[in-house]
Amino acid sequence: MLYLIGLGLGDAKDITVKGLEVVQQCSRVYLEAYTSILTVGKEALEEFYGKELILADRETVEQNADTVLKDAHQCDVAFLVVGDPFGATTHSDLVLRAVKLGIPYRVIHNASILNAVGCCGLQLYSFGETVSIVFWTDTWKPESFFDKITKNKKNGMHTLCLLDIKVKEQSLENLMRGKKIYDPPRYMRVNEAAEQLLAIVQNRRQEGEEPKVTEDTVCVGLARVGAVDQKIASGTLQEMITAELGGPLHSMIITGILHPLEIEMLKLFAVNKVIFEN
Amino acid sequence: MLYLIGLGLGDAKDITVKGLEVVQQCSRVYLEAYTSILTVGKEALEEFYGKELILADRETVEQNADTVLKDAHQCDVAFLVVGDPFGATTHSDLVLRAVKLGIPYRVIHNASILNAVGCCGLQLYSFGETVSIVFWTDTWKPESFFDKITKNKKNGMHTLCLLDIKVKEQSLENLMRGKKIYDPPRYMRVNEAAEQLLAIVQNRRQEGEEPKVTEDTVCVGLARVGAVDQKIASGTLQEMITAELGGPLHSMIITGILHPLEIEMLKLFAVNKVIFEN
Repeated sequence: MLYLIGLGLGDAKDITVKGLEVVQQCSRVYLEAYTSILTVGKEALEEFYGKELILADRETVEQNADTVLKDAHQCDVAFLVVGDPFGATTHSDLVLRAVKLGIPYRVIHNASILNAVGCCGLQLYSFGETVSIVFWTDTWKPESFFDKITKNKKNGMHTLCLLDIKVKEQSLENLMRGKKIYDPPRYMRVNEAAEQLLAIVQNRRQEGEEPKVTEDTVCVGLARVGAVDQKIASGTLQEMITAELGGPLHSMIITGILHPLEIEMLKLFAVNKVIFEN
Repeated sequence: MLYLIGLGLGDAKDITVKGLEVVQQCSRVYLEAYTSILTVGKEALEEFYGKELILADRETVEQNADTVLKDAHQCDVAFLVVGDPFGATTHSDLVLRAVKLGIPYRVIHNASILNAVGCCGLQLYSFGETVSIVFWTDTWKPESFFDKITKNKKNGMHTLCLLDIKVKEQSLENLMRGKKIYDPPRYMRVNEAAEQLLAIVQNRRQEGEEPKVTEDTVCVGLARVGAVDQKIASGTLQEMITAELGGPLHSMIITGILHPLEIEMLKLFAVNKVIFEN
């Protein structure tokens, strides 16, 4: 049996009781390590589970799925995913491969950022399409996420922005030389996301557009949701530039139409309460 | 301290290890009992936690929140919610009351239907606004959810439809006589939701509209997501009328634009695979 097990968002103890029992009975336990991270590392998980973990990077899962699934007809294999197992497309792919090989599978769900963002008080029902904001480079500055945010905003919906994660990336130089040397991991902060968004707002104005999202749009910055030191800051997009939220992972919400109860909740996390008085 | 603790979706063991530890240390533990249900009852939870639970119905939480929060300055109080604590607005309200009374709070997240629906293989990023489908009565047949589904569909997005739950409802007769006699709980099934949707499709055609959602729209019916006996059926809206999904809770998804990998996943649950061959 293949078990896909969500680990939730905080630390080792955010696994469910059911998930923990399954991990402890499995022959092999993989830890997916490229779509998200916990506030604790592999070692802390191994100690808590009393079980050795095999790190599964993107290459392993996408190109060597058969290694993960090996002998899963006869034994139990667990595949651990931070958050919920179906946050990322890759994991559907693993399920499909298992089914094709005749291996039964089971999912043990957990919180993911997609529902845990509700902690800021915005109604989950009122979110439109989720977008990903990627790190810009000198030569590649995509703006397509801005159009999706705008579409949600026009429909009165909030947008959850997942911020880029760069894990096990090679510099162009190392890639070309065929050297398997990787850059240190990078996690986009709310401030960087806000800077990129504000740059797009400027671009759009220069193109004669009147953007629906502006410096004054109410946003929410979230860091380490679900962990003890979780931080939430609400304020304008401009204010997000200087919000101090600490270490990764960060996410950001661009709000649509706000319900009075949502405003009351956002006030709890306001950088500057005056914004929410009107 | 007030703890809001998500229970996940299946049974007693879907609580997180952290959640279980907190429950066991709390002076009072409330179980919210009107926005969702687990596949097990209060007694099974009490036995597993080794702790007595106080059932909190809508009245208790909305009108007697002070009872829930009593002495929470000095002692720990847990408020258990099926799924994740921020699925329903009511719980924001409880947080706001706690903050006003100077009571600190913490949230222990878990899976909710809003992210666990990913198990059918549809990408969570591609969902638009979530809607609720309510039981029609002889005199009240609202159609507003259909317009939201249509809007999502036009934007290529999937729609998660949460199906009505009637718990502790009084008949008009008992209400007028002031008798606190309650009807047995009712949970809308996918079949009933599909019937109501098809009735709206007919109405719209009679009004000269050409509805975006029709008999042939691909839908997914889900029952008891996260439980061992979870059931998923994919097919046309027409096929949902006869889908056999068993006991509650049910949810339904009306799909938008389908990605090839999504189609591959939906095939696993197809009532009739031919639908997905084109």
